[in-house]
Amino acid sequence: MTEFQRIRAIERALGHRARGLGDDCAVLPPMDGSIVVSTDASVEDVHFRRDWITLRETGWRAAAAALSDLAAAGAEPIGLLAAVVMPRAAGESDVVELMLGVADAGETVGAPVIGGDLSAGDKWVVTITVIGNAERLIGRAGAIAGDGIWVTGGLGGSRSAVEAWLRQAQPEAAARRAFAAPVPRIAAGRWLAAHGARAMLDLSDGLAGDAEHLAAASRVGIELELELVPVAPEVAKEAPRLGVSAEQFAAEGGEDYELLVALPSEFEDVDVAAFEVATRLPPTRVGRAVEGAGVHCTLGGRPVRLRGYDHFR
Amino acid sequence: MTEFQRIRAIERALGHRARGLGDDCAVLPPMDGSIVVSTDASVEDVHFRRDWITLRETGWRAAAAALSDLAAAGAEPIGLLAAVVMPRAAGESDVVELMLGVADAGETVGAPVIGGDLSAGDKWVVTITVIGNAERLIGRAGAIAGDGIWVTGGLGGSRSAVEAWLRQAQPEAAARRAFAAPVPRIAAGRWLAAHGARAMLDLSDGLAGDAEHLAAASRVGIELELELVPVAPEVAKEAPRLGVSAEQFAAEGGEDYELLVALPSEFEDVDVAAFEVATRLPPTRVGRAVEGAGVHCTLGGRPVRLRGYDHFR
Repeated sequence: MTEFQRIRAIERALGHRARGLGDDCAVLPPMDGSIVVSTDASVEDVHFRRDWITLRETGWRAAAAALSDLAAAGAEPIGLLAAVVMPRAAGESDVVELMLGVADAGETVGAPVIGGDLSAGDKWVVTITVIGNAERLIGRAGAIAGDGIWVTGGLGGSRSAVEAWLRQAQPEAAARRAFAAPVPRIAAGRWLAAHGARAMLDLSDGLAGDAEHLAAASRVGIELELELVPVAPEVAKEAPRLGVSAEQFAAEGGEDYELLVALPSEFEDVDVAAFEVATRLPPTRVGRAVEGAGVHCTLGGRPVRLRGYDHFR
Repeated sequence: MTEFQRIRAIERALGHRARGLGDDCAVLPPMDGSIVVSTDASVEDVHFRRDWITLRETGWRAAAAALSDLAAAGAEPIGLLAAVVMPRAAGESDVVELMLGVADAGETVGAPVIGGDLSAGDKWVVTITVIGNAERLIGRAGAIAGDGIWVTGGLGGSRSAVEAWLRQAQPEAAARRAFAAPVPRIAAGRWLAAHGARAMLDLSDGLAGDAEHLAAASRVGIELELELVPVAPEVAKEAPRLGVSAEQFAAEGGEDYELLVALPSEFEDVDVAAFEVATRLPPTRVGRAVEGAGVHCTLGGRPVRLRGYDHFR
């Protein structure tokens, strides 16, 4: 089975969800607005383990993680490319399964698979490049003192699954889903971009780590009130085992792929309900941007030191 | 050292050759023409070995291989993204070295590093995504019966280096350079696109394999005359050891990153000299497109079966 034959097998399996595979380059459709690009690698035994999730889930998760960067930019996905390194022992059906997961995730947000690359290797590495289009592009710099700092959805679910697996237990269904099938918040990101978002990023390194990035890029301080953090219900089972509060567990957990966004203070009075209607996601204010630098975190008025979630541990 | 600190170190080292690293997305400049994208992975112990080339050469080679796909489309490079998986034992200076090689290759063709991703892993995997702009886009389909089939430059140099290393010898300087520092044929690709190229691809799988791709996509047959193949001088040392002709060795060798192009038959009489003046590369006609299918190869009138170069061996 040559690379050429594998690509044809993937093309057949993906059907209308793929376009122009096997060409040297993918051609983008004409677009108004800014074109944005992002790339993100998912590495076996670093970002996931084969005995945790299926190959189809691995593909979904890799694509969702990359698409989440488009969500954070307020962009509309246009297409994605998948560079897949597959173990030599893996077969055609394995890479097709993985690519079906990639295509599933892309399809939910209107992004066909428009290109890619296949290589052999020791372990799976799935590098997804996403391309999007944005009318009003949101970056990390732009928050100003006085802005509310908000998150979408609930936090800590993905970490709950990892902690369960690490102690050889099966995670609860909701925790497993949070890890294996994260939903890129495309609609939420676009809505927020159109409704005054000043700075935005996606929560891949955890609230603690990503708030640091937002503060540094925007040259503001951020005060986080941990008691405000929306904790995913499945955290209740895992946080006590580590001897930390549910809020701290959730704020230090990575890869929730929710959005962290700085919004003008008026948002709280005007737009919360409209956001929930439009996106069916609860927005939660977890803190505030202030003059200064760095992230300062309290729980019940007492300072708490959080650590970020970094794969280079 | 966190991912964030590593990205800052890379940004400092790359200077003007990087733009906006650390953001969630790269933003493309406004462009006329078609926007094209391609992604390509270089895997340690599959595409290269650490004891063969330096990390800086590894970065150059990975970027050049990806940029070569833009050359084949006749596109002008706009920027590139690098998703790097680095072994846990590697340090900041290692990834900076590798990224300097990526930036070197990009700079020669006007493509700054506009984004990327860093992950830990067992071995190096460098996935480069390139973005380009094309006024007239050339694909693999488009060759018609009667076209001349041409290649740029000389073939077999890269394979000569690999064969030397595999027998524990040091390759000749020219062979080593062909493997470690291939030149993406951007100017040649753009010139050919503007002067009537009907179909084009880059020689990554070898003349034999890539001619098959061109024939299949264009629904023509291709007759290759092996005695016409421009053999890199360094092949002379390696081909006899394998008991094959220099021409066959060169035609079966992969990763030369020269261009394979179908041109109207008039090209031979009119444009050969102009091409050489414009690109300082010798163009060589190696065969002809005919009615039919598949690649038929002869040496001195006798049929020769060639095999393609496939990393899935």
